Order: sequence, then C-alpha cells, then structure tokens
Amino acid sequence: MSPNADPFFPEIDQIPVLESHDTSTDLGFRSYDPDREVLGKRMEDHLRFAVCYWHTFCWPGADVFGDGTLGRPWHSANGDAMAMARQKLDVAFEFFSKLGVPFFCFHDRDIAPEADGYRESAARLDEMVEAVAGKMEETGIRLLWGTANLFGHPRYAAGAATNPDPEVFAYAAAQVKHALEATHRLGGENYVLWGGREGYETLLNTDLRQESLQLGRFLALVAEHKHKIGFEGRLLIEPKPFEPTKHQYDSDVAAIFAFLQKFDLVDQYKINIEVNHATLAGKSFQHEIATAVAHGILGSVDANRGDPQNGWDTDQFPNSVEEMTLAIYEILRGGGLGSGGFNFDARLRRQSIDPLDLFHAHVGGMDTLAESLLRAATLLEEETLQGFVDERYAGWKSGLGREIVEGKQTLESLHAEVATGKIDPAPRSGRQELLENRVNSVLRR
Amino acid sequence: MSPNADPFFPEIDQIPVLESHDTSTDLGFRSYDPDREVLGKRMEDHLRFAVCYWHTFCWPGADVFGDGTLGRPWHSANGDAMAMARQKLDVAFEFFSKLGVPFFCFHDRDIAPEADGYRESAARLDEMVEAVAGKMEETGIRLLWGTANLFGHPRYAAGAATNPDPEVFAYAAAQVKHALEATHRLGGENYVLWGGREGYETLLNTDLRQESLQLGRFLALVAEHKHKIGFEGRLLIEPKPFEPTKHQYDSDVAAIFAFLQKFDLVDQYKINIEVNHATLAGKSFQHEIATAVAHGILGSVDANRGDPQNGWDTDQFPNSVEEMTLAIYEILRGGGLGSGGFNFDARLRRQSIDPLDLFHAHVGGMDTLAESLLRAATLLEEETLQGFVDERYAGWKSGLGREIVEGKQTLESLHAEVATGKIDPAPRSGRQELLENRVNSVLRR
Amino acid sequence: MSPNADPFFPEIDQIPVLESHDTSTDLGFRSYDPDREVLGKRMEDHLRFAVCYWHTFCWPGADVFGDGTLGRPWHSANGDAMAMARQKLDVAFEFFSKLGVPFFCFHDRDIAPEADGYRESAARLDEMVEAVAGKMEETGIRLLWGTANLFGHPRYAAGAATNPDPEVFAYAAAQVKHALEATHRLGGENYVLWGGREGYETLLNTDLRQESLQLGRFLALVAEHKHKIGFEGRLLIEPKPFEPTKHQYDSDVAAIFAFLQKFDLVDQYKINIEVNHATLAGKSFQHEIATAVAHGILGSVDANRGDPQNGWDTDQFPNSVEEMTLAIYEILRGGGLGSGGFNFDARLRRQSIDPLDLFHAHVGGMDTLAESLLRAATLLEEETLQGFVDERYAGWKSGLGREIVEGKQTLESLHAEVATGKIDPAPRSGRQELLENRVNSVLRR
Amino acid sequence: MSPNADPFFPEIDQIPVLESHDTSTDLGFRSYDPDREVLGKRMEDHLRFAVCYWHTFCWPGADVFGDGTLGRPWHSANGDAMAMARQKLDVAFEFFSKLGVPFFCFHDRDIAPEADGYRESAARLDEMVEAVAGKMEETGIRLLWGTANLFGHPRYAAGAATNPDPEVFAYAAAQVKHALEATHRLGGENYVLWGGREGYETLLNTDLRQESLQLGRFLALVAEHKHKIGFEGRLLIEPKPFEPTKHQYDSDVAAIFAFLQKFDLVDQYKINIEVNHATLAGKSFQHEIATAVAHGILGSVDANRGDPQNGWDTDQFPNSVEEMTLAIYEILRGGGLGSGGFNFDARLRRQSIDPLDLFHAHVGGMDTLAESLLRAATLLEEETLQGFVDERYAGWKSGLGREIVEGKQTLESLHAEVATGKIDPAPRSGRQELLENRVNSVLRR
Repeated sequence: MSPNADPFFPEIDQIPVLESHDTSTDLGFRSYDPDREVLGKRMEDHLRFAVCYWHTFCWPGADVFGDGTLGRPWHSANGDAMAMARQKLDVAFEFFSKLGVPFFCFHDRDIAPEADGYRESAARLDEMVEAVAGKMEETGIRLLWGTANLFGHPRYAAGAATNPDPEVFAYAAAQVKHALEATHRLGGENYVLWGGREGYETLLNTDLRQESLQLGRFLALVAEHKHKIGFEGRLLIEPKPFEPTKHQYDSDVAAIFAFLQKFDLVDQYKINIEVNHATLAGKSFQHEIATAVAHGILGSVDANRGDPQNGWDTDQFPNSVEEMTLAIYEILRGGGLGSGGFNFDARLRRQSIDPLDLFHAHVGGMDTLAESLLRAATLLEEETLQGFVDERYAGWKSGLGREIVEGKQTLESLHAEVATGKIDPAPRSGRQELLENRVNSVLRR
Repeated sequence: MSPNADPFFPEIDQIPVLESHDTSTDLGFRSYDPDREVLGKRMEDHLRFAVCYWHTFCWPGADVFGDGTLGRPWHSANGDAMAMARQKLDVAFEFFSKLGVPFFCFHDRDIAPEADGYRESAARLDEMVEAVAGKMEETGIRLLWGTANLFGHPRYAAGAATNPDPEVFAYAAAQVKHALEATHRLGGENYVLWGGREGYETLLNTDLRQESLQLGRFLALVAEHKHKIGFEGRLLIEPKPFEPTKHQYDSDVAAIFAFLQKFDLVDQYKINIEVNHATLAGKSFQHEIATAVAHGILGSVDANRGDPQNGWDTDQFPNSVEEMTLAIYEILRGGGLGSGGFNFDARLRRQSIDPLDLFHAHVGGMDTLAESLLRAATLLEEETLQGFVDERYAGWKSGLGREIVEGKQTLESLHAEVATGKIDPAPRSGRQELLENRVNSVLRR
Repeated sequence: MSPNADPFFPEIDQIPVLESHDTSTDLGFRSYDPDREVLGKRMEDHLRFAVCYWHTFCWPGADVFGDGTLGRPWHSANGDAMAMARQKLDVAFEFFSKLGVPFFCFHDRDIAPEADGYRESAARLDEMVEAVAGKMEETGIRLLWGTANLFGHPRYAAGAATNPDPEVFAYAAAQVKHALEATHRLGGENYVLWGGREGYETLLNTDLRQESLQLGRFLALVAEHKHKIGFEGRLLIEPKPFEPTKHQYDSDVAAIFAFLQKFDLVDQYKINIEVNHATLAGKSFQHEIATAVAHGILGSVDANRGDPQNGWDTDQFPNSVEEMTLAIYEILRGGGLGSGGFNFDARLRRQSIDPLDLFHAHVGGMDTLAESLLRAATLLEEETLQGFVDERYAGWKSGLGREIVEGKQTLESLHAEVATGKIDPAPRSGRQELLENRVNSVLRR
Repeated sequence: MSPNADPFFPEIDQIPVLESHDTSTDLGFRSYDPDREVLGKRMEDHLRFAVCYWHTFCWPGADVFGDGTLGRPWHSANGDAMAMARQKLDVAFEFFSKLGVPFFCFHDRDIAPEADGYRESAARLDEMVEAVAGKMEETGIRLLWGTANLFGHPRYAAGAATNPDPEVFAYAAAQVKHALEATHRLGGENYVLWGGREGYETLLNTDLRQESLQLGRFLALVAEHKHKIGFEGRLLIEPKPFEPTKHQYDSDVAAIFAFLQKFDLVDQYKINIEVNHATLAGKSFQHEIATAVAHGILGSVDANRGDPQNGWDTDQFPNSVEEMTLAIYEILRGGGLGSGGFNFDARLRRQSIDPLDLFHAHVGGMDTLAESLLRAATLLEEETLQGFVDERYAGWKSGLGREIVEGKQTLESLHAEVATGKIDPAPRSGRQELLENRVNSVLRR
C-alpha cells in the first residue's frame, strides 16, 4: 500500500499455510501450499490464482432488489472519483499481498472511473495504469488478464461490436485498443473479451446475420492489433448463454468454436470458461473443459459456482472438491492451462459485509481448488480411470477400428462384412458405478 | 389400403376443409387449405406436411412408469411380426390418405421389425420397402425422409458411430447404407441422422476426442455413399441436447455447425430442427431456425412442442400460433424449407386412446401451422417488422459502418476518430414493446 | 398534473379505443374497451387494471451489468429528493390518466424517498400521501393496493419479519403499520405483503423453524392491526420461489396455503399471483390460479410474463393471449377477482428508453388481457370445455362415486366389490388434443 | 436362496468391510461398517439401508428410446410368470444377504405379477407374500416398507384415487387394502403412497377441486384401515412434482403439508423424501429435509441422485458426500429417521449390464451415505455451525425478541418504539463463506 496509507485489513498479516486438521483458526490454508510439488510442478504454478478487481473491490453489495450493503469507503457517492480509485488500488494490492495470490485481473473501468468524454476517460486510465504498474513492481504481483468493460454504460445497451449503430462499434474499438495496450504495458499474460451485450433481447428487432458479421470483424481487428503492438499474451473469449441479454452469441464452447471457424479465427483465440456460465448453458463445467480441450481451444478459467436451484449467475466462490476435481482432471490431461489461470470471478454474498469475509471467501476457494488439484493428480498418477478407458476403446487402435479411422472402409465394405453375419457385437458394461466409486475412493482418502 | 382390408378408421372418409367459424364438427381443417395461395405458392407446397411412422403407428402408449394404453391390434405381443407390419402399413396409408398429407417419414425398424440376424432383418426391410412402394404409387403419397434406428437395440446402448466397439460402428454403417438406399429407392427427398445415442452417460468412461473422430468419419462415409448411389436428396442432422443420453454431441445448431466445419462437411449436411429439442437445449425454436438460416444450413423441421414445466421431450403436437408464426416468419425470410417440410414428430398423450385422437392431433397441428403461415406471410407482406429493422441497421450500409465491414478501419483508426470526441453515440429505443404489439395486432386480426 | 407543470408526455392526449384492424396508428386499444360488456359486466370492471409505481416511474433502466438508461429527470443523482418525488407524482398521474387505467399500486418508498431516520421517513410519506390523495381526487383514479418496501434497504438484507435480529422485525412492523394506514387513508382496496427477503441464502446460518415462527407472528400482527383500524380491504401475500434470496418461504400457492393453515390465518389472507413468479416456481400461471381458486384463496394478479429461456424475473409485459386466456378462464370460473385486479408488475426492456415506450408496453398488456377476457368468456359461454369435463366426472355424482365421496365406503367394502370381479374399469380417452383444438378454434376466430 | 438354486452371483460371498485406503479390490465398504458407533448408535441403526425391488430386480434396462439391456433370466418374455417371480425372489434375497442390508422395499406387482383378473392377481400376491415371509425368516432381513403399484397398468392412466372414474378409485382401494395387509403380515415398518398418476396432463379436462376431494378421501380411508387392522407402522406420502404426469398433486413437502392440514390428516401421515424428486421440484434435498423436520413430518428417505443437466428422474445412486452430509446433518438435528430408513430408489445406468454392477452401485451408495453420516456427526459434535447460529438468533430469546414471539407486542407498540429513533438496526455479516469453509474443513479431513 502507499507508504502513508493505513491498512484496510489491519487484523490480517499474511494468510498462513496450516496443517489440514488445524482447527485453531478459521483463516488459513488447509490445502493450498504454493510451494508443494504436484506432478513435478509447484502448486502455485499449476493454479495461477488471480483475484478479480470488479467483484472484490468495485461491487457495492447491491442486487436487483436492494442497495449496496458493503459500505466500502471508496464506494461513497460523494468524493473525488480518482482519489477513491487510488484508495481502492491500495486496498486491492494490500489484499492480493496478504492473500498471497500471484495474479489479478481487471476491466478498464474497474481501476479508472469513466469520465465525461472519451479523452478524459482515457487519461484517467493511463494515470491509473501507471499507479498499478508501480504497485505491481512493488509487490511482484502480476496481471493474468485485462479487459474492457463494454457492457455497463448505456451506450452499449444494444451491444458493443454488435450494436446497430456503427459509432458504438467504433467507441468499443477505441476502448479495446486502449485496454489491450494497457494490458500489454502491464505485462498481462492474456486479454479477455466477454460479450455481455453481444446478443439480443428480442429477435423482432435484430438482424442476426448482420450482427454476426460485425462480431467477426471486431474480433479480427483485435487480433490484428495484438500482433501490431507485439502483445504476446493470448486472446480469450468467455462464453455465457444469457444474462444480461436474453441470448448471447458466445453462448458456450461449441458456439464459439463454430464462430471462430466461420471467421477463420481459430488460431487467434482461446476460451476462458466460467463455471457458472457453463451450468447456465445447461452443461457441466467438466463438459465445457473437456470440449475445449478436445478442440484445442482451452485458455483459462473463471472459477466460481452457481446455485443449482437459481437460474442466474450467482457467482459464488467454488466450494465443491467433487465438482472441481473432475474438471481439473480434464485440464491436467489436456496439458494444463498454459498461460491461463484460475481467476476468482466470484463475489461475496450480499450479507457478508465484514471486510474479512473477502479473505474467508478467497481462502475457501483457493483451498477447494488446491484440494481438487491434489485429488485430480492422484486420479492421473494412479490411472484410476485411464486404464479402463484405454481398454474400452482399444478396438480402435488396430484391425477394423483402425481401418475405419484411417479411411480404409466405406459403407459398402462395412455392409459386406456385417452381411456375412460375423459381426454381431455384444454390449459390454460401461462400468459407470464402478468408476464413480473409484473416483470417490480417491476423494475420500 | 389392401383391397381386402377393412378400414381401421371407418368413421372417417376424408378430413374436410371447413369455414374457420364452423362449429358443427370437431374434425375438419379451419385454417389449412392445401390449395390456398400464400405468397404465390400453394399452402401445401409451403408446409409439405409429413406424418411420422414411429409415434403414430409404432408407439404403444407406454411411458417410463406405465404400460402401453393404445392397444392397436398390430402391437400385440403375439402373432406374426411381418403380418402385423403389413397391417400397420395398411392403416398408415389409410391414415395418410384420409388426413390428406403429401408426405410421411420412417425409420427402417418402423416399417420392418428387426429379425434375429442382420441378413434376415435386411430381407424384411427389402420386402416391406416393396410394399411401401406399392402404397406410395397407389396413393401418390411421398417420402419426406427416411432414417435408420440406431438407438433402440441394446447393441447401440453406448452409441452407434461413437461406440467404443468398432464392430458397432460397422453394424450401424451397414444399417445406414441399407436405409439410405431404401430411401433412395422410394424417392425420399431427404435422409436424416439423429444421434440419439451419440453422446455420453458419464465422462468418466468416455474418450471425447476419439468419439468425435468416429462421428466425423461416419458422417463423411454417409455423404460419400450418397453421391456414389446418386441420391439427390439432402442429408440432414437433427440436434438434441440430451435424452436418452446425458449429453448428445449434436446438441444444438451451433454445436452441429462447429462439427460440420471441423470435419469439412458444411456442404454435405443441413439441419432438421425439432421444436422440443430446441427448447430442451435452452433455446427458442425461433432462435434455432434463425441461427440455421444465418449459417445457410436450415434443412427441415420436426414439428411438435414441449411442456415448459417438464424437462424432457414431451413431443406434443404444436398448438401455439404465437410461437410458430415467428418461426415460420424466419423460415420465409430465409427462403423457405426447399425440399424439407414439416414432419409431425409428435405423439398422442398416453390417455388419448381412441384411434380418432390421431386425427384430432394431426388436424390440430396442421391447422396451427397453416394459421401461422398465414400470419407470418402478413408480417412479411406488410413489413410489420422489416422496415424498423432496416432503419435500425441503416448505419452499416454507408459511411463509417460500411468502412468497418469492408475492412477499411482498424482499431487504431477507430480509436483516432473516437479520441477526437466527435463520436459519442446516444442510445436509441429498441422498440421491443411496440414491435411485439405490431406482431400481436397481426395475430389477433 | 399540477396546474403549473408541463406535461411529460406532450405527444399523447388520451389513448383511443380503435377498431381492431386499424393500422393507422400504433398507439391505441384494439381489444380493450372499458365499457364493452362481457358476461354482463363492463370490461373495466372485470380487469381492474392497475399501473405499478415502481417499475414504471422508479426503475432507472439499470440491470445487474449496467447503469440506468432511461434518464428520467426525477432519477437524477443530484437535486432535492422531495421535489423529485413530487415531479414523479405529477408524471405518474398524467400517465394513469392518459392511459385510462382505473387503478395504481405503490410501495411506501416509491412515492416518498427514505430519509435518514425513521421519523423523517415517515413524515415524508405522510406528506406524499396527502399529495397522492389530492391527485386521486382530482382524477378519480383509485388505489388497488399499497405495500411497504421491506427489501431494498441493507437493514433487510437478512430478512424483515424473518431477520435474526428482532429490531429489524420491529422496524419492519413499524413500516408496515404506517404503509397499511396510508393505504387505508387512500381508500386502497387491498394491502400486499411480498416477502422478498423472507427466505435464506444458505441453510448453514439459518434457523428455519425460528424464522417460520417469526413470519407467522408478523402476519398475525398485520391482520390484527387491519381490524383495529377498520381497514376493509383484503390482505394479500405474493408468492415467489427465489430471487433475490436463494429460497423464499412464500414460494408458491401451495407453500403459502400450508403456512396460512399452520398459523390459522386462512381467513385473513388471500394470494396475489404473479405470472413470472409462477413460472419461476416451475408451475404454469394457469395452475397457480386454479390451485388458489380450488382452495378459495385467490386474491389478485400481478400481470407480466417471464422468458422461458431465462431463469430470473424478467417482468416483461404480458403478450400471450394463448397463455392468458386459459388463466382468465379459471378466474372467471372461480367467480372473478372480487376486489383484486390486474396490476402490471412489468417493466420496459432496458433499451426501450423513449417515454412513449411506457404507453406501448401498457397498451400491449391491456389489449392482451382484454382479448384474453373475450376469448375466455366465449369458452365459458359456449361450454367449449365444461360439457366434456362434467361428463368425464359424472360417475362421482351418483352410485359408487357418490358413496365414496360421502364416506359410505371403506377400503374393505371397496375391496369386496372389486373381488367379485364386477369392477374392472376400462380407460376412456382423455381427449386432450380434441380439447386443445376446441380452445384454439375459439382463439383463432 | 432356495436350497436347490444356483447362486446368481457366484463370484460374491459377502461384501467385506475394508480399510478406507485399501485399493486391492473394488468391491468392499470403505466407509460403511454396520457396527461402528456414531453418536452412540450403530451405523446400521442410523442408516437402516433398504434395497428396492423394482429398479434392482424388475427394471429390464429399457428407456424411452431403447429396449432392455440387462437380460436377466426372469425378464424373459416367455416362460411361466410365477416361476420367474420365484427365481427373482431367490436372487433378491441372495443379493440382500451378500450386500448386508437390513431392509428391502417392494410394490405388490414387483413380487407378484399381475394376472388377468383381480382375484387371481390377489392370489398370486398372497402366494408370493408367503414365499417372501419364508425368505425373511431365513435371512433375518426385514421390510422397511411396502406399497401398491397404482401407476403401471393402463387402468390408472388418468389417476388412481383421482381418476374421473370411481371404479378406478375402487380398484385402487382394493389393491391398497391388500398391499397394506401384506405389508402388515410381513412386519413392514412403514407403508408408502406415491401418487405417480395423481395429477393431470392438462387442466383442460381436469376438475382440480373434485380430484382433490377424492385424494383426501382415499388417504383418510387408508389411515382408517391401518388402525382397523392394527398396523403400527407409519404411513408415508412421497412427493414428486411431475413425471409421468405433467403435474402431480403431491409436488413437494409444502404441497403435501398443505393437503394434510386441509384434510385433517397431519397426524396420520409422514413424508418419504426422494433426493431426485426434491431437485426436480426446484428444491435442494437439504431444503426438503429441513422443511419436513420443521413441520414434524419427516418420515423416511429414498436415496438417489439426479443429474443437474437433465430434467427427469435419472434415479442414479447417491455419490456426493458433499450433498448428503448436509442433509444427514438436518436429519440428525431433527432426531433421526425413527422407523424410516434410507431406501435406494436408484437404478443402474442402462449400460451397466454386468450383474456385479448391482453390487458396485449399492456399495457406492452405502459408502457415500456412511461417510456422510460420519461427517454430519462431526458437524454436530463439534458444533461447527450451531454455535454461530445460536448466537445469530440470540436476540429472540430475551427482551424485545421474546416479547414479540410471545405476543406481547403489536404493530402499534413496535411502531412507537421505532418512532423514538432508538431502534435503528445495523446489519451483521451472515458469514456464509466462513461457514462453508468450516463445513469443508470437516469434509476434507
């Protein structure tokens, strides 16, 4: 924090690594230990945790039916906007440091409040980027990814890239150029695009094909600019099926993969998968991870969880080792997240008004993912599942299976073989319950 | 029907075309009139109605918790399977004729019961195809599409093309070759693939990437064979997100489009969209139609409806003009269904045990779609929506918008323009409520 | 409006009643005609339309991801709160009058902004109630119901009546006393309680039984006070299953009925059913209406609609005659809404920023419900459904059925009869498709 | 098994209790140990496991789209029905014994196939009940509950108690009388009613109020007969919101509680809660348990799980310790299940065709619940949550809170207190994340 600032969390020094059975304190890591080796790599380097700026420092604790409850000083309706931004920055880096995460993520508007005109907004962003850079240098904390907020301001109500008004496209382009360059300047390892308003409220007033062209153009321009400025981080698109819009074009991994192929952008973008967005799309998180891995487009993860009984983005902190172990298992099998990481796109419950609740929430999330990593590593190392799966598909490695895959069989040749009567396959058990038990026995050790 | 057969529906002669206000009878068309001209084409030629063989003649009225209720004579557990198949065929064509639909659709197993071995099953199919051909000639009723049942037999429990066992792939290939040729012989206008078992029950025992390769190979083989035999109908894939599997690979239009591009099959396949499958996938039917139109891959429609409170495929007959008008509007704007049509992939409620209920159900569905066609045509002709939409996107036809779309602007050039302060777009009303009112005023005339 | 105020909607004089086919203007009633007689009663007296204050005049057009878009002058962050409240009041009554609705509804905080302490807030409410009374007298517009906002302020984050802190219960009690008396003073015909925060976010910190006792006590106190002050309007509870909470105790009609019986409050409360709340609860609106009618606890309706693909309260204006006709049919069969009415608890889409959109939205909703009333009346008058239903249950009016219902049969006596073999009931068709067709033929005339 | 019968599971002797880390075998209990003491009671006596007859021995492995896959000898379409019933009985008790469960559950039709007329069906049931009694005596295995199948036969398609035809009511009454007496004869500890067809497919043909009266009458008759024959077990109703019907009257705990109160049956019935039915109803299992406990009507549990992405009853075996621990915690706090138990109303996946999969599935389920019991006991013993909860509601034990609950305050008196300005409650943190972490730390030890 700034030399002269009082700490915002004076009770906290540094979250300690505890023994897993230690019940003497609530605040400490029971599973996470950055230096512990897992599959030959430090835990910290597997998980690459990031705290998000928006939920953690910008969200006031409001919901659709109620006012903000959190009462952070920098949320005050009065006061100097830039002074409050600087205070927020101090608190954020105090928090990152005390929590012990290596990364953070932000939208342009999270760190620098929008001003009256574009130019003044941009100047504010530049000023705050300098301040952030100072903090990063001071603490060693890095930027997992930056992004631009293209959904909050009324100008984006009908979309940014997909707005019926080309001037809004232009405004969004300008904002992304600036945010991408800011990310570059701060050494960000990725840049994310989430199309929160790129969709429709009703098809009655929408030209789907036109908006699709616009989105394709926008993404191409961003990729072009990335190369131009020499940004070597990855570009990521984040899927979500709806909310705030009725329908978002980037609804799930499959929809984005279709889009990237159509606009010849597969080599330019990878995907940032959020748990709660996956479940809103009617998919398990594990499914979305496995699908992205299968297509070679997995980029990063927004870690959180939804509520299975609520149909919106509840953005709660992850707390299910059972759910996360299977997803991390897919990530590990796919070779890990590379320059991606686990960003906590999660927020406190509105009643969790104590500043310390921020620590409880993140510690819980980090422990959940650390524990899941340990269990997933065991699943891999002990081949709890892989042996069975390999054996199950063994027929495709030789003989008929191999010929089919290699294009040496046709419908006609296969028909001829079947018609001889020699091919009359008998089902074999899929062993689902057995495999579930095996996973559980690893989970419960 | 066969010369010596008693009619199964002796009370019915031919479903008449009534005046819309005629309340003297329940059984008659109040909106459908095959010869009525709409947008310069006969109603029949727009809608190209088909009755499906499976729900209408094969389904016994059973559900997960209860036995069959319908008690059709050819559902008897005893008796000669082929004799019952012929009786079913008589009744089916009696029904098609009296209802007055131009088309029907079938799976291989619907018309010819599976026998003990592949060869005998194939022989049964050949025999029944001959009988069907005779009926078609006799009545002038045509085949909208044929398909193979690759989901009912236990051998397909773990998938057909995506089975871990290559012999199952081979068996499925043989069956599709035969069904495709049967469809060709009967002059079918399309051939459909629905991957009811092409998915997974659990990722624990599944190799997603391997199964994806298998599916790609299978579809390529089918397309190859189609060309080889000179079948000029279209190949269609039918999406569904789940049921019977936990997850089906062909989950929605976007997922199929991604897949077709990946395996370079976009030119070979179009999509057969089912209403209830769309809603199970969390999409509106209108959305799925509009998406397929936007990608140029709309093929045909399986007309039915789901229950908004039930999470499975209820396959009820369409009865909402409000829902169908907007979907048909998208179809008309997209140029119509071409060689596709509206197939009633719908079944009676289990309590609707009177054979006449089959007529009530289909007449209701046909009237719903006919009425929807009329209303959709009015929306088009009166430009109820198009004028507003054109004006909304007008900015993209010239000036800045056109430059962006034509690739003459970059992030940098756009940033420069915005930074001047001249671009500061103000939102305009999306007019959703107004447009909804306009649609309603057409619906309620 | 105040004598010296400029109209806020200068383009609008009074929404006219049009011919249904009139396409010369978008703004006019095509189905609603207050004086038209339906089943012997004026349309206005059947429907008893109310405009809600909150969505229509207080909501700024914000959503979870974006700022307000509507820019009404009285939403300004600066300025004198009471002056803005008076301006809002002027505009509200200008709108009610020009729209031609007989009723409105409000929360205490909608008309009078909360001040620093309770006493000052109460004084503001009193002042505004006087102003409202003047407007009502001036225009003849009446109050369908009043209510207290017990969910917006942070003090209610953990519930009002069900808060773990009894002081919050006390605060809520004070607020309801005041709002109930204000409603009484304004001649309100009902008083509504919606327990937006009466539920839980997690069972981990919740004492369900304790909270249930508190809620029972609260409702009893309100009923007591109602009688004490001689308020003759009805008390209504409004169900909703979740949002903002994870779970609300008043989740649906059945849950409220269970609660009212447990706390002996069945005679004191009726239910205000909202369409979108019903569908969020996994029930059709028609079901919730029919259930409330069956238990004799139907009170009033919050008219709106949800989006079948979105899992939160979208609060759109009703626009489906198909959906509403069946619900109004149940209402008419149940004897109507009595002193209840149809309150539009609906809001503009965030992009509908033109003040005139408020008229489009309400006119569309009113026409939808008016048209639905006409169709429902036809269903009743022509006994489209009732004849079949009566015949279907006729067995219960005499013989065995009557004996069973009157308690003259036991398991033993019934067993004896069945064991004779004379009772072996055969299913009869439920005729669902036929009845659906009949309804549709009425809908499409 | 019968002295002369070959074992159906020859590979299995008795499922052993293993060390939790033992990886030498897949088939053994890693958490379940019947004799282990938990909170002063044997594990077996807490959990009271039951195997269900229907899924485990009657279901052939069919689903809506496919034929049976399991191929058990007694599922053969040919052969003597009663001989197959006896073989099934042998296998069932062999399975119960080798698995080591103390209880089983059945429907009348599970153990004795329906015959042509009522009398013959009843005779078959009597015969099989004798055989079952012999098996029970031989093995010491007891009956947790019996029930009657009132949903499979076409006569019940439109409901049993709620059928429009009183003769169907009579038939159902006869069947329940017989099944209740059979349960009594076998020393069953409970008798269950699940209203699988007591609901509607469409309100168009339904008289809701009439059907509600019928259901009330039916339940009263059953209670009467129970007392008459001296059956001292409990009567249980099992909620489910839909499937097979569009809507079932007994949709959730709240709906049943409303019904029981209306018909004055609260003292006669308790509730049998199924996990997957709870989640289909949009409630968490924990919620339904807690609600039943709060109303004093918790009876027993049907243990299984649903799939969060599939909208029907998947009836999978429980495998989440995270989910079950919280539910068992509520059960323990509520005093346990009394004469209820955990019945596995769960079935194999259709691909799990190996008879041994039955063991894997049940062992996994038993271990999951045993582990959950251990964790829940720790939550109780260590007061992981209770201390915080008690402190949170402490205000209700004295002073203002107590006066409110005891009826010593009115709206007026509370208003007076608040108006003084002394009551201005400040929110306190709900500590959700902290409590979640505490639970997780118990789960992960």
